[in-house]
Order: sequence, then C-alpha cells, then structure tokens
Amino acid sequence: MTTSPLSRRRLLGTAGAAGAAGLVAGAAGGVAGTALAGDDTPPLSTVGSTTVMFHGKHQAGITTAPQSRGHLAAFDLLPDAGRKGAAALLRRWSRTAERLTAGRAVADDTAIALDAGPSSLTVTFGFGHSFFSRTGLEDRRPAALDPLPAFSSDALDPRRSNGDLWVQIGADDALVAFNALRALQKDAAGTARVRWQMNGFNRSAGATARPMTTRNLMGQIDGTRNPRPEEADFEQRVFVPGGGGAKDPEWMAHGSYAVVRRIRMLLDDWEELSREEQERVIGRRKDTGAPLTGGTETTPLDLEKTGPDGRPVVPANAHARISMPETNGGAALLRRPFSFHDGFDEKGVPDAGLLFVCWQADPLRGFVPVQRKLDRGDALSPFIRHEASGLFAVPGGCQPDGYVGRELLEG
Amino acid sequence: MTTSPLSRRRLLGTAGAAGAAGLVAGAAGGVAGTALAGDDTPPLSTVGSTTVMFHGKHQAGITTAPQSRGHLAAFDLLPDAGRKGAAALLRRWSRTAERLTAGRAVADDTAIALDAGPSSLTVTFGFGHSFFSRTGLEDRRPAALDPLPAFSSDALDPRRSNGDLWVQIGADDALVAFNALRALQKDAAGTARVRWQMNGFNRSAGATARPMTTRNLMGQIDGTRNPRPEEADFEQRVFVPGGGGAKDPEWMAHGSYAVVRRIRMLLDDWEELSREEQERVIGRRKDTGAPLTGGTETTPLDLEKTGPDGRPVVPANAHARISMPETNGGAALLRRPFSFHDGFDEKGVPDAGLLFVCWQADPLRGFVPVQRKLDRGDALSPFIRHEASGLFAVPGGCQPDGYVGRELLEG
Repeated sequence: MTTSPLSRRRLLGTAGAAGAAGLVAGAAGGVAGTALAGDDTPPLSTVGSTTVMFHGKHQAGITTAPQSRGHLAAFDLLPDAGRKGAAALLRRWSRTAERLTAGRAVADDTAIALDAGPSSLTVTFGFGHSFFSRTGLEDRRPAALDPLPAFSSDALDPRRSNGDLWVQIGADDALVAFNALRALQKDAAGTARVRWQMNGFNRSAGATARPMTTRNLMGQIDGTRNPRPEEADFEQRVFVPGGGGAKDPEWMAHGSYAVVRRIRMLLDDWEELSREEQERVIGRRKDTGAPLTGGTETTPLDLEKTGPDGRPVVPANAHARISMPETNGGAALLRRPFSFHDGFDEKGVPDAGLLFVCWQADPLRGFVPVQRKLDRGDALSPFIRHEASGLFAVPGGCQPDGYVGRELLEG
Repeated sequence: MTTSPLSRRRLLGTAGAAGAAGLVAGAAGGVAGTALAGDDTPPLSTVGSTTVMFHGKHQAGITTAPQSRGHLAAFDLLPDAGRKGAAALLRRWSRTAERLTAGRAVADDTAIALDAGPSSLTVTFGFGHSFFSRTGLEDRRPAALDPLPAFSSDALDPRRSNGDLWVQIGADDALVAFNALRALQKDAAGTARVRWQMNGFNRSAGATARPMTTRNLMGQIDGTRNPRPEEADFEQRVFVPGGGGAKDPEWMAHGSYAVVRRIRMLLDDWEELSREEQERVIGRRKDTGAPLTGGTETTPLDLEKTGPDGRPVVPANAHARISMPETNGGAALLRRPFSFHDGFDEKGVPDAGLLFVCWQADPLRGFVPVQRKLDRGDALSPFIRHEASGLFAVPGGCQPDGYVGRELLEG
C-alpha cells in the first residue's frame, strides 16, 4: 500500500507506455486490499487508498508527487511553551501525522475523513529562525536559516511570513487535508497558535490523459527543470548529508531547507499579452513547454540560437534562461508548489498565484542565487509580486519510536 | 463520452456490487477515446475525460454528481448594459460554457486547462431579483424570486449576497474550474462585474472505496434524504414544469430555483461536544449516517421510538427530525452543496463551512418552510451562522442553436 517517492508519475508513465489509454484513473501504486484471485485486471488502487509512509530517512512531502490539495501553516509558540513544550508538541504532531497518513483516526476524531483512504496524505514539519530563540536553542540554529536577502520585487506581509514552526499538508482529497490541518491545530492548543495559513491546489490525479508536469495559473508548464531523483547529484542538491554536512548541525542530517513564497500573479496584466508575447517572457512554448529554440519539454534551451533579426530566440531576460541551473553556477532547487486562489478583490481582480515551495540542501546555493538573478532582470517580474516569505529548517524523517525534531529538541 | 445525470454514483455502485474492490478510481461513465479492440478490460475513463453535456432539457450542474471543486459567483450588470447587453452576455457565456464543458479551448485561451480533459465541468447560469429591474423585465420576474423571509439565525453580509446574475461552476479539477471562472469573467467585461465569488470543494473522485453521500466539515454525512431521480415526483419537486407551471412564467419551463447560503460552521464550538452529543444534535450516527433509532443510512427515522428514560431517541429538536420532508408538509429540496475553507482568522478560528446550494421547483415549498422550521428549534442552530444568501431563477437548458435565458431575453 505504500509508494516510493514520485512513484505515481513513474507508474502512470508505465501504464501510458503500455497503451492503456483512458484506463488509469490517476491512482498511485499499491493494490487496495488483496488482489482478486484469478483476476487478470491490472492492480489499480483508488485515489483514496494510496498511502505515503510518514516514517523514513527523509520527511514525506518533499519528493512525494504533488497532491491535488495543500495547506501551508505557520505556528508561533506561546510565551511559556519553551523547549519542553515544543518537544511535547512535536511528539504529538508526529504521532497524529503517523496515524492520519496511514488512514487511521486520531483520538478526538471528528469523522471528516472517516470513509476516505489516506489519499496520499503527507505532513511535513519545519522550524523557523525565531523558533531557536524562543526555545533557548540559538546555538543549534543552522546558519542556513539566516534571513533571506531583500529582493526589489518583494512586497512582503510580515503577518503572513516566517513563524516558529511550519507545517505543510498535502493530500489528494480536500477533506482529508482539512481534517489533518484541524487535528494538528488541536494538538497545538496551549502550546502554539496559528500565525498564518494558506490553501493551495494542483491538478487532480487523473485529470490529464498522461502524467505531466503541472501547469500554473498563468497557463505555463511549471517545474520542467526540476532535479530528478534518478540524477546522481539529486540527494546532495536537495538534502543535507548524513552527519550534518560542513555547515549544518548534526540534527539536520537528511533534512532539507524549504523556502516558501506566496507569489501573487497579476493575471489581468499577464493576460493582456498575446500568446507570443507570453512565450517570449518565459522562453518556452505554452502548449508543450518546449524551448522556443525547438524540441520537446525536456530539450535544453539553445542559449546561442538567433532568429532572422539576429537576436537570441530565447530573449536575454526570458524567465527560463535566467532561472536555469546552468546560468546560476549549478544552483538547483526542487520546486514543489501549489497554486492558490483566494477569490477576487472588490475590483474583480483575482487574488491568485503560486504558493511557491522549494527544497534545497542550502538556500544560499539554491533559492538565493536564483532569485537574485531573477530579481535583476527577469521578464516575468512585472507580472508577479512576492507577498509573503518563509524559510524553514526541515529535519530528516523519524522512525516509529521517535518524532520529527527529536535530535534537535532532546540532543 | 457523455454521462447521464448522477450516473457516476450509479456506475460506481454497479462496479462495487460486482466486487471489483479498489478497481474503480472514481471516474464516471464513458470510454476515453475508442475501446481497444480485443481488450476485455472494463471501459474506465479517467477523471479528466468525463464530459457532462452543456445542452439539454435542464441545465447541467443540478442533478450532476457533485464535483470535487466548485466556484460560485454573482455578477452585477453595469449601468448601461440593459437587456440587450445582458442578452449578448448570456449568448457569449453559453458559447464559452459549451466549449469548455466539451474540453475545448476558448478563443483567448490562457492554457491553464490545456492538457486536462473536461473533468466533469458544468456551468450553470441564473438570474437574481435585481436582474429584472436592471433590464426592464419586471413583468417577467417570477414571483418565486420575491425576497426570502428573514430568519433569526441570519447574519447576512449584503456584499456577498444576491446579485443580478449567478454562475455556478463545478469540475473535478481545480485548474479546469478556475479556467472556466476566468473565461466567464472575461466574457463579462464591459457588461457586468463580479459582485461576489466563493470557492468550494467536495470529496475527490475515488477518495472513498465505495461511492458515498459526501461528508461536511462537521464530519456529518450530508444529503442522505435528498430526493432521488428514480422517485416518481423528483422532476416536479426540483424543476418547473414544461410550459411554466401555474405560478411561473413560460421562460422558466424546465428550470429550477437555486437558494445559495454561505453557512459558516462554528467548528470550535461544535468540536467541544462529544461524539454522542453531536449525534443527538443531528439525530443520526456520525459513522454510518444511520438514524439513532437504528438501521442504515437510508433507514427512515423512527420518530416515536423512546429510550429507557422515556424520551424520544431522536430528540425533538434534532436536525434530522426537523428537516425531514415528512415533518414539512412534503417539502423537498435537492441539496448540492460544496464545503468551503477560507483560512483562519487572527485568533485561529477557521472561516469554514458549507456553500449550501439547494434546488427546488418552488422556494416557498422547498427551502423556505424547511428553514423556517429549523429557525424555530433546530439543535444545530448554535453551531452555524448564515453569512450570505442568494436566490436565483435558473432557466431550463438550451439547445446548440440557443443560449441560456433566450426565452426570457428575446421572448
């Protein structure tokens, strides 16, 4: 019933290759219950029955295929919680996450998710910069949590930024995700309170005939250049090494750093551009995601190619050119965003965009250099606005007898 | 590729009865593309490929199985739009809805939904009370649109209530739904502007092993007593008869009236009750939805049965007792709600509940008597708050050469 990271994509890819068009309905690996004897039907599980293990070397929700529904929330410790209260909270949270991700109910279950399976639920916990001073653990604060530099395109709302603790919830069912959010909020009562909370979504499992990189609300295929687990340097780009690495404390072994940005898309402005203008802003075709220099979605950009006018086919300020790892000293981050849409304002302008979440072993070699370059000359900048920001240290996964952050809080 | 109303539930029910546990992943009827020759695999479509016809006797989105994502929006006509502008808008909207529900792109497509199938998209249009004075059509306004009575539990926000025009969008993919919302908003430019807009959700297709009545955010199975299409009086309870009926104008033939209420759930208060207390408030078990007097979800309440203390097992003020058709002079309405969750307030209280949408041939024999009874003595009242309200006349469906509302606007 468990699936290995990113296996949905792989499994669906396999099914697609076998020509079973229209057969797979978006479920990930694993059989629901036992296979029926003498039945040759391929073992498909429902969307609901897919389980992502909570325990493991890394926390779930990082390399897990993006779910269709997501909640991000930051919590602040209450003044008298301290290190002991925080440890008890992380212990409760881990136990709740373990139960819910396995499709079991918590003690004071409200039945919202009663009939649904785990629906690929993942719960991921992180610590913000302020957590360490609140708990007297400054000496264990990773240098990587030093505040992000300011960027010229920032319009950050401090009330929706940062926070002592961070929780990322993802599931392929909205009620399962909400149930987890409420259960974790209840666990926090008396110890921490919600600082901010945001809702996001991605394509539903099975909405496309073949597995695809998801699209964002600008209509752009988004995430093509993500590092892939099969690449040799994937682990070292995304995760802190075992033992803690040169700059990281030991408790961050197998952990990762999450940068969270609420990126508002100025969709009315964006949609005034023609399809061709939009494609020059990005440097890729909208329909296939292929570079304007040709090929398919995964073909590398040809940075040198010029058009009949002698100018680069992929403009010098195109988003895809500026954000590509090759132009950023090899920087790489694993993007795993959700889209958001929180209605319209009184003028009918959508409050919508991207809950950008990216993962890296070191923000100073991941998000920061990429964003710095984008900040200087990205053609996409006029159409987006960073409205909130967070940076969180996400420790490695825990074992059944432990809890997330134990090495920090009891070490 | 098309499905008849409510067929997902029926189809899933059939598959479940055949014992194919875990096989069906929530897709509705119809084969994606053509069946593979010589392939005995049951014809399953993906979530994305399911199409709900826009054209028909009734508008889609009324008896259609509830989708996992929904948008409700009201639009107000601009001052100089008039009847002619409104007619042109409804013509554009109908054409856009026809294209998008068939999985085709609109002219100025932004590609958000490019790869996804129609994902059971439905778009439903209605007219509010104020529409008729804005367009000089007062003489065609149905009496059924007379304002709803005030209820003691109302705390209505006028800015999020009513409106000249109403649009209900549902889809099993969030990007498909958002794409439709934006396309309709663009169609309205120069003629109408968004008055209010709300986002909702339901269980994902395939999240439960068997098809089920959905749960709401109180954890309650919600919709058990809905009238069913196979019942003899279903049509007459939900739809205005052909020709228009005794009280209805002819242009409302085969139409229905939608009552829309944003019902905030006071979840923190609700969750302070024990499971047993919650069940006495409702009169049904939380796990199965069965009456407290025994049986299964579909067993009728035994109103007379008393417990060892001599008091009714289903309390006199239980929600299920008060809202049941048998205690409301046969009133019946088709509930088709979405849940909503718009984050937390600064105290951590969830802004969550039910986007209640109900359908009936006559609000004075549907919503109004039921809500009046609930208003007087429903044990659930302390835990909910009606925050917005709308009442809309939803005409019958149109044919390919027509548009929704043509009989009103050109008649």
